[in-house]
Amino acid sequence: MSPKFIGVGVGPGDPELVTLKAARYIQQADIISYIANSKGESQAKSIARLVLPPAGGYEELPLLMPMSEARAAANTVYDNAAIAIHSAIKAGKQVVFLCEGDPLFFGSFAYLLLRLQGEVNCEVVPGISSLHAASSALQLPLTLLQESFAVVSGRHSFEKLAAALRQHESVVILKAGRSRQRILAALQATGRTAEAQYLEYIGREAERIQRDIQHLDAEPGPYFSLFVVTKQQRKHH
Amino acid sequence: MSPKFIGVGVGPGDPELVTLKAARYIQQADIISYIANSKGESQAKSIARLVLPPAGGYEELPLLMPMSEARAAANTVYDNAAIAIHSAIKAGKQVVFLCEGDPLFFGSFAYLLLRLQGEVNCEVVPGISSLHAASSALQLPLTLLQESFAVVSGRHSFEKLAAALRQHESVVILKAGRSRQRILAALQATGRTAEAQYLEYIGREAERIQRDIQHLDAEPGPYFSLFVVTKQQRKHH
Repeated sequence: MSPKFIGVGVGPGDPELVTLKAARYIQQADIISYIANSKGESQAKSIARLVLPPAGGYEELPLLMPMSEARAAANTVYDNAAIAIHSAIKAGKQVVFLCEGDPLFFGSFAYLLLRLQGEVNCEVVPGISSLHAASSALQLPLTLLQESFAVVSGRHSFEKLAAALRQHESVVILKAGRSRQRILAALQATGRTAEAQYLEYIGREAERIQRDIQHLDAEPGPYFSLFVVTKQQRKHH
Repeated sequence: MSPKFIGVGVGPGDPELVTLKAARYIQQADIISYIANSKGESQAKSIARLVLPPAGGYEELPLLMPMSEARAAANTVYDNAAIAIHSAIKAGKQVVFLCEGDPLFFGSFAYLLLRLQGEVNCEVVPGISSLHAASSALQLPLTLLQESFAVVSGRHSFEKLAAALRQHESVVILKAGRSRQRILAALQATGRTAEAQYLEYIGREAERIQRDIQHLDAEPGPYFSLFVVTKQQRKHH
């Protein structure tokens, strides 16, 4: 296989939700790269633990992300990583970047891909996103037949949240941690509180599912939390 | 493992996009069920070919779907299948239902699940949906940071398509086959033609990607076709 930069989705948390293709690429990699915190801990690497080759079988290229929310600091990390990955691929190495969930769905991989596209061969292996992990955990169809479906971020304005809740039968609200109060208010204002369910840390040890969000307090929750809103009364078709 | 009805996503076409968990459940199944056409051919079963045990290692329960679009005929098939699955599980068997893509995203599995939930133990294993397969094939981020994202069906009205195209940065239009003309008109009316890309049969032999949809004629296309629309000018963040 010619040297490539390959973004690989490892799914949202359950290590068995890695695909056969992701497993194969991870096992063939010369360099495995991932986002890590300042201690070097990486959620994506932890999710990939079932398929990672034994230590020493590959080089690691962790992207240590600063805690700060400043984009400039993150951009410097991406710039440096892109240069390192570029030179590794030119030297004939296979570089696999591990991504939580799906690589191109609200993920950091996009920032590396934008820097390397056109410069080196790239490939993307899709992963199970939190959308599909959430509906599976709830055993709730995300969409049926003619229904339409929107994904919004908890960071959106009250107006944008309410508009999506009014216009689409199914709505998933991601990044619901800090803005839980605003989300609960938008659900209330659009009459959809009873149609909403709440999840955090899907497929991880700390997984929590709250089917009746009346019991959810208005305190902020973790980053990996989301609401799934669907039409309550669905008939058999 | 106690007997269960398990819906398992096998991904959109590439047999390597099956998860380790789906593979394990398929290999442990007593009965493997799937939608088939009147000749008994099943797309989902074909996608699962890398992980299906040798013939004879399991019983098969195909749901032969009538060609007609009448819901009543399909409902009869689901009713019968639900009864057969229910009795198999009560007899201690593990029943795995193979689903193209993700089981709960526009899939037929929902109709079986609605009939069996509360009656027998159920579980759902998420799969790679066409959303994520499409963005991987295009190497195109579906969403970045504050962007919002909608999924609509080509069967929706012109007005509904246009509203989604106006309100969301990213839009995926599924089931784009028969209504290609209406979709092209809605893209034109909302000024998003240049931001749209077209795909059909992702990950299959007949895969086709049209990045410049100006070259797409207005004839109907296959059922498994979709448009991905994203903001054209994305800056590095």
